[in-house]
Amino acid sequence: MARIALDAMGGDHAPEAPIAAALLALPELDSTHTIQLVGDAEMVSAEIERQLAGAKGGAMVRDRMTIVDAPDRILMSDKPMAAIRSKPKSSMVVGLQLQADGASEAFVSAGSTGAQMAASTFILGRHAGLTRPAISTLFPTARQQVVMLDSGANVDCSEEELVDFARLGSVYAEDILLRPNPAVALLNIGEEREKGNGAVKKAYELLEQSDLNFLGNIEGRDILAGATEHGAVDVVVCDGFVGNVLLKFYESVPPLIVGLMTRAGVEKHRATAALQGFDYSDYGGAPLLGVKGVSIISHGESSPRALKNALFVALRAVESRMNEHIGRRLEAAHPIAGSGQS
Amino acid sequence: MARIALDAMGGDHAPEAPIAAALLALPELDSTHTIQLVGDAEMVSAEIERQLAGAKGGAMVRDRMTIVDAPDRILMSDKPMAAIRSKPKSSMVVGLQLQADGASEAFVSAGSTGAQMAASTFILGRHAGLTRPAISTLFPTARQQVVMLDSGANVDCSEEELVDFARLGSVYAEDILLRPNPAVALLNIGEEREKGNGAVKKAYELLEQSDLNFLGNIEGRDILAGATEHGAVDVVVCDGFVGNVLLKFYESVPPLIVGLMTRAGVEKHRATAALQGFDYSDYGGAPLLGVKGVSIISHGESSPRALKNALFVALRAVESRMNEHIGRRLEAAHPIAGSGQS
Repeated sequence: MARIALDAMGGDHAPEAPIAAALLALPELDSTHTIQLVGDAEMVSAEIERQLAGAKGGAMVRDRMTIVDAPDRILMSDKPMAAIRSKPKSSMVVGLQLQADGASEAFVSAGSTGAQMAASTFILGRHAGLTRPAISTLFPTARQQVVMLDSGANVDCSEEELVDFARLGSVYAEDILLRPNPAVALLNIGEEREKGNGAVKKAYELLEQSDLNFLGNIEGRDILAGATEHGAVDVVVCDGFVGNVLLKFYESVPPLIVGLMTRAGVEKHRATAALQGFDYSDYGGAPLLGVKGVSIISHGESSPRALKNALFVALRAVESRMNEHIGRRLEAAHPIAGSGQS
Repeated sequence: MARIALDAMGGDHAPEAPIAAALLALPELDSTHTIQLVGDAEMVSAEIERQLAGAKGGAMVRDRMTIVDAPDRILMSDKPMAAIRSKPKSSMVVGLQLQADGASEAFVSAGSTGAQMAASTFILGRHAGLTRPAISTLFPTARQQVVMLDSGANVDCSEEELVDFARLGSVYAEDILLRPNPAVALLNIGEEREKGNGAVKKAYELLEQSDLNFLGNIEGRDILAGATEHGAVDVVVCDGFVGNVLLKFYESVPPLIVGLMTRAGVEKHRATAALQGFDYSDYGGAPLLGVKGVSIISHGESSPRALKNALFVALRAVESRMNEHIGRRLEAAHPIAGSGQS
């Protein structure tokens, strides 16, 4: 049984898209799970009625949705920390506070990424030993999905932070992708250990000494193959600047390719079908790993389908107890900083 | 009239590919231009005869090729600086020395990139005021080709270096792509000026104050569009770590897409045709900008066609006097460091 809070006001298509996502997700979820729609209660309620009008079986899903009132709205133009302080009744703050209060198990939002990072860190707190949480994204490859992190939470990263990202990504790969002993690779400009900038070179050494399954460096050209010459890769570690540039670049490839193909006379449905599995909305949600809880970041432009998938990622994180596993892994790696409860 | 030195021993397919490239290029070049094939004289000579055997008009191209003996061979596994010191008779050193001696106008190689960077900087020297040369690559986009630099020469870059890359790239766009007043964008993780890591944030300010046509930040998702909301982009500036990761990632996209398309039942020739213009071999050569001369870096796996195109890039650089323009631009930007000859 999980209670998942969904930001009904976050994203370019709110409240329509989040509510449509909830209505898509609920029939596919075990009936013990509920969705908490966090937002302006009147607006959310009206939108639910609008979308359910004329639909059969509305009562069944209606029973498994609760509305949590949050009349304030964080705008994309707001400064993250200022917004979460000055708008305590925003869906972001209220949704995460539910989790801090033990009234919810996960939070999903397509609102401002900066505000979600700040609010998640501030309200849920960080696991002991970790200096910064990281956004973890799934990259489709020719072989299998690969976890890439950080995809944008941290622009300047130390070697220790890169190693912590490897730990976070490994737990994610184990719990969400069900990969035992996930192989970690360090994104670099060459395969040789002496390549890279200062932090990356030192991270290489630390990763070698760690208890992680470290494969060595991975170059940009090997990401889509999902493997280096040393084998298949499950986790790619990089700083948030490189990760963000790469992720956004990657997301822009499929539309361009479909455009080129249709211009070359390939029918659009064939072109789109050819790219199946490379569509971002299949992957939907990027967890902010390292906070004490479950906070899933979705694109501002997320479709109902993308948000539905983000809800599923949230549920898998809850059911697998990913957060607890992350805490244990970090505590083992940072014994002095750890709380000593284990 | 230009004399272009071509490393006959560099790359995965040497000497076959470089010599095939010369034989492809010469009939298309004005008859005043000559190619200097630098490598093991005996091997090069035998390969020329092999490739010309039975071909018509061999004498015409043979007259416009000279062989410059360079029996040493730099291996991909050699340490760059050690190799250029210990192998003075390597094709890399001999080919660049021709230019330093005024006996050649440009150098093209598919050999070790590290050795070519080191040898070019060491033998040709850097323009006054510049701390590091940068590798400049052409990125195909939906709109027009975009110059991206640095694509791998420098992993840690200061804000001043990023601004110098903007200057180098602007001259390249003017002289090689014939774009007047090229628009420069700074690769970043958001469009807002306050985004990015330390060096990038400071570079934003310096670029704003410079005499360059600075458009602001460009995100990963806008590169393939070749434009931001502020207009079309000619030059994308980034450090060599991000640039290298992105470039190698980009190069891996077309083969994957062709694979996906053919698996989906699209005929291979149609798939390949759809991706025309996105094939790296159309672009062939990446100049090392900032050294006093012309040094064009090609992929180790370059095909004869890619190397032919690199020869054309070299020729355009010579004919447009790009190197002189770069010197003047840098001198104007760094008056104290400049030689004061202007």
